[in-house]
Amino acid sequence: MSLFKHRMTVRDYECDMQGVVNNAVYQNYLEHARHEFLKSRDLDFARLTADGIIVVVVRAEIDFLRSLRSGDAFDVSVAPVMDSRIRLAFNQTIVHADSGEQMLRARIITTAVNARGRPYLPAALQVLLG
Amino acid sequence: MSLFKHRMTVRDYECDMQGVVNNAVYQNYLEHARHEFLKSRDLDFARLTADGIIVVVVRAEIDFLRSLRSGDAFDVSVAPVMDSRIRLAFNQTIVHADSGEQMLRARIITTAVNARGRPYLPAALQVLLG
Amino acid sequence: MSLFKHRMTVRDYECDMQGVVNNAVYQNYLEHARHEFLKSRDLDFARLTADGIIVVVVRAEIDFLRSLRSGDAFDVSVAPVMDSRIRLAFNQTIVHADSGEQMLRARIITTAVNARGRPYLPAALQVLLG
Amino acid sequence: MSLFKHRMTVRDYECDMQGVVNNAVYQNYLEHARHEFLKSRDLDFARLTADGIIVVVVRAEIDFLRSLRSGDAFDVSVAPVMDSRIRLAFNQTIVHADSGEQMLRARIITTAVNARGRPYLPAALQVLLG
Repeated sequence: MSLFKHRMTVRDYECDMQGVVNNAVYQNYLEHARHEFLKSRDLDFARLTADGIIVVVVRAEIDFLRSLRSGDAFDVSVAPVMDSRIRLAFNQTIVHADSGEQMLRARIITTAVNARGRPYLPAALQVLLG
Repeated sequence: MSLFKHRMTVRDYECDMQGVVNNAVYQNYLEHARHEFLKSRDLDFARLTADGIIVVVVRAEIDFLRSLRSGDAFDVSVAPVMDSRIRLAFNQTIVHADSGEQMLRARIITTAVNARGRPYLPAALQVLLG
Repeated sequence: MSLFKHRMTVRDYECDMQGVVNNAVYQNYLEHARHEFLKSRDLDFARLTADGIIVVVVRAEIDFLRSLRSGDAFDVSVAPVMDSRIRLAFNQTIVHADSGEQMLRARIITTAVNARGRPYLPAALQVLLG
Repeated sequence: MSLFKHRMTVRDYECDMQGVVNNAVYQNYLEHARHEFLKSRDLDFARLTADGIIVVVVRAEIDFLRSLRSGDAFDVSVAPVMDSRIRLAFNQTIVHADSGEQMLRARIITTAVNARGRPYLPAALQVLLG
């Protein structure tokens, strides 16, 4: 199975007073790439939400290796792996497009919660691991 | 002179509890398109800032006509016009890529401030009107 | 009728590469103060939304007079005025808490849209003008 | 040594299409509380940055236990601990003000980088552990 990658570019409003991308913004990048990955598998996060399938992040482990700056192009990779019977993990990296340097490495663990707030892994998500 | 346009797509984290793009996010879109316009003219906002040329928005007039939703592709246009001797205005629109409907119309008025905080129009920006 | 004011403080992540609050963030401040104003009148924006009363901003006019910086305390004022039969406007200012200087002045025009997307002014909002 | 806590309230623009605070926003909350903690010790992040002391997050481990919603008041705690000779960690929690429930638990590991990009622990930060 080939690795899913999504190309993005830093926007100036994402940079903070240090002149680099603010830490919290990387979570936005990682989330956006995961949702694009879902779309590549014919799953739409907004439609899942509207259908009452509430997918949530339960744990994030993020290593910030180098800082992205204004205008930098970068690729966000997404690799789903089983974490437990009810948890789906995504191994993700952010790689600088020009230099090929790894800027960030993350493991994002997700599950879904049903109407009574109990975690489960919907069939819709299990198919991602196929 | 042909109109500058920049294509973007709504990201899920930009949507709010109403399920549509939050109002403030449109200002991010408009700013990003202006900075891309500058780049198309060999001007870089981050470099201008680093060089001490502080370009600021002094007034924004924004008509929110329709709401963008998750995954919508849209074009942000940028047309610079002289507003006064020291002010440069940008007429901008956001148009839905699929339907061609105008979603937003804005007039963003900018100037630069020098080291003593006084407004002026740097030569670097005057060239945009040429 | 006394003016509604809400005190806030600039957070570092709201500042951009120029070291000042990014323009789009002021719309967040203005929105938050309007929602606090609603709460002071026993109206809750999230509950209105959940109840299907979709209040939207149709036009924003914002004059950026001075820039807020890291740690600055400021007051956001909210004064509702009738704009038309179906539009409610909010005159708002942002005033620096220490210096008393006006940093921003805005007129935010809102309406509500019903299930068929037609604008109307719900009774819930008309009471704000009382 | 008593635990540092900073009280905040969810703002509506911080909620996403699921009607809860977006994951990335929690990193903003955690960062803001750390900077308020620094201020309580007479350290100012913006001034450190202006003085060339670039403090960066190198790793974040965040457990999202429960979701904050519109209007929820919460306390963000900050407890600094030594992580290595050149790394300072912050153990942080977010606790719902009304219910006392823990919503989030995090370990944020930081260091500073000098002008040549090498990590070090400035004396200014070592004092936090005293």
